[in-house]
Amino acid sequence: MKIKKTLCSRIKNMNFNNISFGNHYSDHMFCSEFKNGKWKNSMIKPFGDIMLSPISPVFHYGQAVFEGMKAYKDKKNHVFLFRPKENFNRINQSAIRLEMPKIPEYIFMEGLQRLIDIDRNWIPKKYGESLYIRPFLIAKNGILSAKPAKDYMFMIVSTPAGSYYKNPLKVKIEEIYSRSAPGGVGFTKAAGNYASSFYPTRLAHEKGYDQILWTDSSTHTKIEESGTMNVFFWIKNKLITPKANDNILNGITCKSIISIAKKEGIVVEERELNVSEIIEGIREGELKEAFGCGTAVVINFFEIISYRNKNFFLPKLPIHQRLSIKLKKKLLDIQHNLSKDDFGWRFRLKKYF
Amino acid sequence: MKIKKTLCSRIKNMNFNNISFGNHYSDHMFCSEFKNGKWKNSMIKPFGDIMLSPISPVFHYGQAVFEGMKAYKDKKNHVFLFRPKENFNRINQSAIRLEMPKIPEYIFMEGLQRLIDIDRNWIPKKYGESLYIRPFLIAKNGILSAKPAKDYMFMIVSTPAGSYYKNPLKVKIEEIYSRSAPGGVGFTKAAGNYASSFYPTRLAHEKGYDQILWTDSSTHTKIEESGTMNVFFWIKNKLITPKANDNILNGITCKSIISIAKKEGIVVEERELNVSEIIEGIREGELKEAFGCGTAVVINFFEIISYRNKNFFLPKLPIHQRLSIKLKKKLLDIQHNLSKDDFGWRFRLKKYF
Repeated sequence: MKIKKTLCSRIKNMNFNNISFGNHYSDHMFCSEFKNGKWKNSMIKPFGDIMLSPISPVFHYGQAVFEGMKAYKDKKNHVFLFRPKENFNRINQSAIRLEMPKIPEYIFMEGLQRLIDIDRNWIPKKYGESLYIRPFLIAKNGILSAKPAKDYMFMIVSTPAGSYYKNPLKVKIEEIYSRSAPGGVGFTKAAGNYASSFYPTRLAHEKGYDQILWTDSSTHTKIEESGTMNVFFWIKNKLITPKANDNILNGITCKSIISIAKKEGIVVEERELNVSEIIEGIREGELKEAFGCGTAVVINFFEIISYRNKNFFLPKLPIHQRLSIKLKKKLLDIQHNLSKDDFGWRFRLKKYF
Repeated sequence: MKIKKTLCSRIKNMNFNNISFGNHYSDHMFCSEFKNGKWKNSMIKPFGDIMLSPISPVFHYGQAVFEGMKAYKDKKNHVFLFRPKENFNRINQSAIRLEMPKIPEYIFMEGLQRLIDIDRNWIPKKYGESLYIRPFLIAKNGILSAKPAKDYMFMIVSTPAGSYYKNPLKVKIEEIYSRSAPGGVGFTKAAGNYASSFYPTRLAHEKGYDQILWTDSSTHTKIEESGTMNVFFWIKNKLITPKANDNILNGITCKSIISIAKKEGIVVEERELNVSEIIEGIREGELKEAFGCGTAVVINFFEIISYRNKNFFLPKLPIHQRLSIKLKKKLLDIQHNLSKDDFGWRFRLKKYF
């Protein structure tokens, strides 16, 4: 792999005491090209603009998929990735559904490790902070017919991340707009899934809500996700999460929380979850907590769920009684190498330089 | 508007006797930028690569919409656009749904006219041939959070077009995969709608079909579109087309065909159309023709409709009895200035130079 290091690091512009997500990108990026049926030209180079033909299918047909993952430091400044092979597998599942070439494991894993190693000073050190890593695959060149490209580019960039949402969330159960369709691409991290949510999300913001609680497009009776998070509901001492299907992203944080909760002896149910069950659960005092989870946010609990213009207030549990906070700490402790890694999730980054 | 002309036209590489769609792009492109809430820097420049930050939301969140339109020549080499204001209105409807800024009419129309004027030698002269024009709007810069960009770029490129499909189509009624969801973005020309269709379309190709005949994602009983075309079925002497809704693109060629057909005294029904009605229509000999339409293809009729692994063969009408061919000719005659423009659809391009 070719490595071209920056001549002038931008890290001095970065204030690690006040991390504002996405305002600073680490010094380098990884690129690899798929051309004539082969992956080639893998390299690390200074973060900067890329040149593309205006005909590239990423601009016209949305042939683009991505991943979100994080690198953490422990107290000794050792660096850990969290379940990176899961991201590797999922970006290829997304790629297949969008008729894009699979990324070979050695390109994904080598590119990732070398890049994060070279930019390891960009990884914040505080508990809960991390370097957010964005691998993405886009279609380039091509012709204007609506068909898959022949050439592709796989890239990785990264940005320091503090905590994503600071406050408990107000979410609105959506009954007009949809995120995805059965038989569609909702289970993938296809770029187009996100732009289509911006407009309904703004409408929710204007009514005072942080995020939409998405329901199925056919009946709007079944809970799917919230914003870009998977969701959990703690009802009658069971932790219920919508079972992954065509419409629901197979979240890595979600899967991890399920494993941690089960290990803690909590009953977890992955199944269809009706809106009515949630509303009844709140009304009857049997829903104790609800929260969203994802790589960026980790876990964030809800304080209000709105349904048909009525705000339902969730119990104001003290922090030490919150299942969401307990699970978040368990997860962060594993990620920061503060607890035993019973699941084999930590991936220690070696030092190349 | 700034105009920077190419120093070396590539038109000598173009074989107008054998036009292969999308292999050659005309010499210039139009660009306009949206920055700090304002449109600026409109210019025409030589066709070529563009530079973007790897963080641009078009790469990660699919914030991209486009249009397809055509310029035609008449026998005197006058140039005509076809209903360009319809494309202007539709790209802004798409933009609104994807939370992108509306393009001002003067930028769209001026950019379009100046660009096509400067590249008018690229417009093929033969009947049925045209210059295919691709306006598109993409989100640039931004940060990695899944939210709308602040900066955008509107561009127009073009490529000479012969006839798109040459043979009658074999189409397959789809009951597993979906193109769009109610409450989704299927009615827009959002980039992401297209990439998500590539995989199911390849599966159809592998079974010997040219295109998918899409049905609704909830029940797979209602016909929506075929490939990237709107569809018409001629049953019991009525021309039936699925009524535009959330899931169905509001096609300009489709609307034009409805108007032409009505003027010809044909009964046109825009309504929900069930798969069962089509299959029964074929079985009982009451379905005479079925066809798809769109800007690229104009009109292309179907010879086979496959449903649940059974091929239904459509009547082999001679060309002169085909409603599809008759309507296509009426439309092309208007586009090429060979007939009276009763609807006011032609838009004559003035000469700037």
